[in-house]
Amino acid sequence: MTNVDPADARAQFRAGTVTPTAGWSHGYTQTNLIAVPQDWAYEFLLFAQRNPKACPVLDVSDTGSRTTVLAENADLATDIPRYRIWENGELVDEPADAAQFWRDDLVAFQIGCSFTFESALVDAGIPLRHIEQGTNVPMFVTQRMCRPAGRISGPLVVSMRPVPGAMVAAAVSLSERMPAVHGAPVHVGDPTSLIVGNIDEPQFGDPVKFEAGDVPMFWACGVTPQAAVMASTLPFAITHAPGHMFITDVPDKTYTLGGGSNV
Amino acid sequence: MTNVDPADARAQFRAGTVTPTAGWSHGYTQTNLIAVPQDWAYEFLLFAQRNPKACPVLDVSDTGSRTTVLAENADLATDIPRYRIWENGELVDEPADAAQFWRDDLVAFQIGCSFTFESALVDAGIPLRHIEQGTNVPMFVTQRMCRPAGRISGPLVVSMRPVPGAMVAAAVSLSERMPAVHGAPVHVGDPTSLIVGNIDEPQFGDPVKFEAGDVPMFWACGVTPQAAVMASTLPFAITHAPGHMFITDVPDKTYTLGGGSNV
Repeated sequence: MTNVDPADARAQFRAGTVTPTAGWSHGYTQTNLIAVPQDWAYEFLLFAQRNPKACPVLDVSDTGSRTTVLAENADLATDIPRYRIWENGELVDEPADAAQFWRDDLVAFQIGCSFTFESALVDAGIPLRHIEQGTNVPMFVTQRMCRPAGRISGPLVVSMRPVPGAMVAAAVSLSERMPAVHGAPVHVGDPTSLIVGNIDEPQFGDPVKFEAGDVPMFWACGVTPQAAVMASTLPFAITHAPGHMFITDVPDKTYTLGGGSNV
Repeated sequence: MTNVDPADARAQFRAGTVTPTAGWSHGYTQTNLIAVPQDWAYEFLLFAQRNPKACPVLDVSDTGSRTTVLAENADLATDIPRYRIWENGELVDEPADAAQFWRDDLVAFQIGCSFTFESALVDAGIPLRHIEQGTNVPMFVTQRMCRPAGRISGPLVVSMRPVPGAMVAAAVSLSERMPAVHGAPVHVGDPTSLIVGNIDEPQFGDPVKFEAGDVPMFWACGVTPQAAVMASTLPFAITHAPGHMFITDVPDKTYTLGGGSNV
């Protein structure tokens, strides 16, 4: 049962359901979670401010708190279907419940997720090949370094979607109107000057098959902070597992210009 | 000589010229400066993240640094025409040069300024009454509290511009496309439910005269962080003096969606 309201979805995950969240609670914003020790929180927030397309911050919880203004009665340590636990930049565990790992000095960041603008593209009739093919969106490490902040640095990571040539302009316009969830693409077309390696071999997610006339479009990706955690060897961090997002109570349209956001 | 390039303007202010910056270096972004001790920097950045319409952060300098990526070779301690020095939430000095007050533990924030969207309104033929009348824009403390961050809290402050009824929609659309400089208005029309006090008695700036058919439009204002400095009794801060802004090398259009920003 995936088309449940966000509170029900979170309750299912808290009770032990483990599943990717694509397609769950249609119309509600899903987020990337990254929780870091307070000692690193300023540099992480600064890293996000300096790289806003990759790291759009939708909420920051108070130190030690497992709650967020984005979801009523949520527990950030239990309400995500799968977590990743990081020590010294290394992945050490992937539990379905992070309560035993949570610490009083952690600061939890909610980062905008491309699922939000994907909904807008699909609603406009733009085909998303990775969804048609039942795979994860391909993500690539780029040749561009993010602007560092103190001890935190790392490469920009992008997600790639093949889009029919006649729909490229619409995909730009629609995503641009959602600056809080990565905004307009950073690159369209031949990725030679952008990505590290080959377009058939993404560093995260799965390869995707192009249809005739498709143009590759690249958006800044919320995996960028996880790449920075690895590159910067943070002593400790908790994140969601890829594709297993936090489901908020916030309607997607809140993050569209003109959609009613008034903050 | 006001229509000089930004580097020349900064050089004149560094050499001692004291003047409001409205009308200087047309087409280039001006910013609000607020520098706080490192011990307060995380909470200030968090306050800005939680109140993005009032506190759009365009840059944060490294601790102790007097430079910014927004302006080549600039010295933040000397290149603003007039500063304000704050101790324990009280204004203690208004020097033309802040070098003797700068400290190695200060973190300098550049906050977006309504001058940027005012240029877009004027270019579209929307009259700005306070400019026609040669006065400062009126600013009001509101009944709304900002979302606090740790020790930092305070009321939302708004600026008000009377706009002819036929141009209200255009003023909304144009400013909405500039989310990095306060974005769309927070309120249009009767301010009874919004402001503290009377529309003829702004708490900052000057009263403005309405023309027949004008509607009051209220935008979140970059004075909000200064109000928070006062309300939160920060032990020390350096800000620009009202109307005496920092002039960057960044063209205004960079902060318009579609204007070329690619960060």
